[in-house]
Amino acid sequence: MERVEIKSLFCQAQAYAGKQITVGGWVKTIRNSKALGFIELTDGSSFKNLQVVFDDGRIDNFKEITKLNVGAALVVTGEVVLTPEAKQPLEIHADQIEVEGASSPDYPLQKKRHSLEYLRSIAHLRPRTNTFAAVFRVRSVAAYAIHKFFNERGFVYAHTPIITGSDCEGAGEMFRVTTLDMDNPPRTEDGKVDCSKDFFGKATSLTVSGQLEAECMAMAFSKVYTFGPTFRAENSNTPRHAAEFWMIEPEIAFADLDDDMALARDMIKFVLQYVLEQCPDEMQFFNNFYDKGLLERLENIIRSDFAHVTYTEAVELLEKEKDKFEYPVYWGCDLQTEHERYLTEQVFQKPVFVTDYPKEIKAFYMRMNDDNKTVAAVDLLVPGIGEIIGGSQREERLDRLTARMAELGLKEEDYSWYLDLRRYGGTKHAGFGLGFDRLVMYITGISNIRDVLPFPRTVGTAEY
Amino acid sequence: MERVEIKSLFCQAQAYAGKQITVGGWVKTIRNSKALGFIELTDGSSFKNLQVVFDDGRIDNFKEITKLNVGAALVVTGEVVLTPEAKQPLEIHADQIEVEGASSPDYPLQKKRHSLEYLRSIAHLRPRTNTFAAVFRVRSVAAYAIHKFFNERGFVYAHTPIITGSDCEGAGEMFRVTTLDMDNPPRTEDGKVDCSKDFFGKATSLTVSGQLEAECMAMAFSKVYTFGPTFRAENSNTPRHAAEFWMIEPEIAFADLDDDMALARDMIKFVLQYVLEQCPDEMQFFNNFYDKGLLERLENIIRSDFAHVTYTEAVELLEKEKDKFEYPVYWGCDLQTEHERYLTEQVFQKPVFVTDYPKEIKAFYMRMNDDNKTVAAVDLLVPGIGEIIGGSQREERLDRLTARMAELGLKEEDYSWYLDLRRYGGTKHAGFGLGFDRLVMYITGISNIRDVLPFPRTVGTAEY
Repeated sequence: MERVEIKSLFCQAQAYAGKQITVGGWVKTIRNSKALGFIELTDGSSFKNLQVVFDDGRIDNFKEITKLNVGAALVVTGEVVLTPEAKQPLEIHADQIEVEGASSPDYPLQKKRHSLEYLRSIAHLRPRTNTFAAVFRVRSVAAYAIHKFFNERGFVYAHTPIITGSDCEGAGEMFRVTTLDMDNPPRTEDGKVDCSKDFFGKATSLTVSGQLEAECMAMAFSKVYTFGPTFRAENSNTPRHAAEFWMIEPEIAFADLDDDMALARDMIKFVLQYVLEQCPDEMQFFNNFYDKGLLERLENIIRSDFAHVTYTEAVELLEKEKDKFEYPVYWGCDLQTEHERYLTEQVFQKPVFVTDYPKEIKAFYMRMNDDNKTVAAVDLLVPGIGEIIGGSQREERLDRLTARMAELGLKEEDYSWYLDLRRYGGTKHAGFGLGFDRLVMYITGISNIRDVLPFPRTVGTAEY
Repeated sequence: MERVEIKSLFCQAQAYAGKQITVGGWVKTIRNSKALGFIELTDGSSFKNLQVVFDDGRIDNFKEITKLNVGAALVVTGEVVLTPEAKQPLEIHADQIEVEGASSPDYPLQKKRHSLEYLRSIAHLRPRTNTFAAVFRVRSVAAYAIHKFFNERGFVYAHTPIITGSDCEGAGEMFRVTTLDMDNPPRTEDGKVDCSKDFFGKATSLTVSGQLEAECMAMAFSKVYTFGPTFRAENSNTPRHAAEFWMIEPEIAFADLDDDMALARDMIKFVLQYVLEQCPDEMQFFNNFYDKGLLERLENIIRSDFAHVTYTEAVELLEKEKDKFEYPVYWGCDLQTEHERYLTEQVFQKPVFVTDYPKEIKAFYMRMNDDNKTVAAVDLLVPGIGEIIGGSQREERLDRLTARMAELGLKEEDYSWYLDLRRYGGTKHAGFGLGFDRLVMYITGISNIRDVLPFPRTVGTAEY
């Protein structure tokens, strides 16, 4: 008999009432008395489990089933019985239970609460827990929401390169990619590794951003976005940093910083709204067990405006409370997470755009403001996380851009293709980068990035 | 005035008739007589260009505009005039033309036909040509179709890791990822590079497949898929191989090889249908200029069944024509592209599934058939390309799997987490990998993978 998904059963309970059906899934709990037993079964399609009632006489392997361990995979055929008084709309009275794959008493996921730290050590099994079933479903739905948002607005999705011969931001620690024999690499006459013998004929790294390439695409399509993995080889052992993470980078032509902020705000609201609609059970679970104020906070964000201050105003606000912070606050400082969180959590109590940062702490490609001190940069800060988006209007004026590059010691020949975008039909344009994993943390209330990535890569850890 | 997209104008011509509007875009062609000029303008939202009519007296910078070069960026305000007799439904009579960014006579994309080889050398500008505007739009729409297909069917999208400490397929040449100083790496006592000092505390590489990790997720959600970049460090300088390419890997639980083939077929048909609906102008362009039979072939595929032969039957068919091939054909041989293309183009003239390959030429995790000689593998071959999908039913029987691993010299301890999936509630399951770039080649009729990737990475080439 064709297998029915548990989610379909729950969604169309009336239609299935009294019918004989087959489901497949895994045992979450099992208990029994002498002649009657109950199994909570999940197939991952629904956050809620299906109750399977099995009874001696009705199935012919009652004994075998009572000996099953949590985690076993079953294929159950039986009758759908509506249960209007129970929490779940229906249950299955089994006529046949086939053991597809047994489990054993040493199954690491017993019916008890495991710590998130312990579960990280069994990342191959943790999607089977309630927490990770909810996290990875929400992650998937949020990713779809991103694609849907941009697709509905006519953006072109661009696959920018992962392996790169150029260092986009002129900064950031990068992973080297090579096929050379590291024990005995070919060397040039002066004893250095001979990169011309490497796979690509030169030294290459993993990308830290697809922005510069996305700009090329935006000068053809006007509206593009990337959504792919990016990498930082930073030795940051914090709950917010992973060495490999997914980033979304839209880039829009004929657009300034205001357009950029409007796009970021609309995107965030769209994704939150979509996840709340599509994952009500998962989101209720996070609200109950991880963050009591979560749903209220997210709903508030969808309804409310985002705040906006300039960097200069933000520093003034922070200086009033400078005794509260570990790191000093002064005009010109890079804002630390403690500063960012204070602004968004204490001062504004909602997401806040901070714009117009000192040029010294921002990248070379950001558009110089008329004060010649600040650039048209924007960060979006959100409660519980701090910075979730960093963006800017790009410097479209060739002379300004090359002057800034010279100040910073960047060579024009390394960026000739990037400068071409200003030589041939350059336009005002802007974009931003959204750390997708941080967005998932923000939506779920999960506080460690290791718990929103299926198989996290952090300093010292690359299991699986 | 708020900018209107050219696509919106074309879609709602009647609504805009007679209205004053503003558009932004790039000059594709420009010509003029003494007092009247015509510009073909694109903003990338539509494959079709917008005609802008400008006339001395009506605009106050007529001279300046006549001197513009192809590629210049303009913001044009003017009146929408319907043109029922022309190819395009409307044109703009300009009242104001603002030069947003000039271009120059050395602009590499002049109004003439450039070779694809030449355009590869200016990959940062080529999205502005008709061919690449069409290719990258179709690529984007096809990617969305993939997400839409799986999302509508309840699949969870899983971000499997890019940097990996394990070699999934026990084969395949991989790129090494490191933060060690390659000139002077730390060494162990025996003179080898000390990988314990590397970023992750061990040697790591770029993934060749997310399948094994996707299997972990499938044992929780039943239906999952990946869509991300994968890497092969093969020195293959062919039109079909890139070192970095995007792959889709669905994995389904409680499913066998027939379910796997049905999923692959439904997915391919869905994507083709969606692209034909969403990109009629682009697809007509490919049909006109790259592959005269393209539309007919794709429409035929949507309507028709896919063929299915076993490997053994395929070899028999090929042996009848063995003089036609460069590489020998015999039972046990790995099918070459020439064999694959002969089967799908000559014998069946449509996509064909080939199943049940000799175990010797397939990966360790594929399910052993009862003959103990072949495994439940499947390749989908399509005309013009050859293999586009490779999949299998996975070996869910722990004893069979470990026996096969032992035969191949694979160590159990390196795969303990993978074996856990068979120890705890293992199920029948299957999946496949679809090379996304090859799918885009197939859909567009573009015959070199370098022309469907925005910034291709191949041996010796990692520009941008």
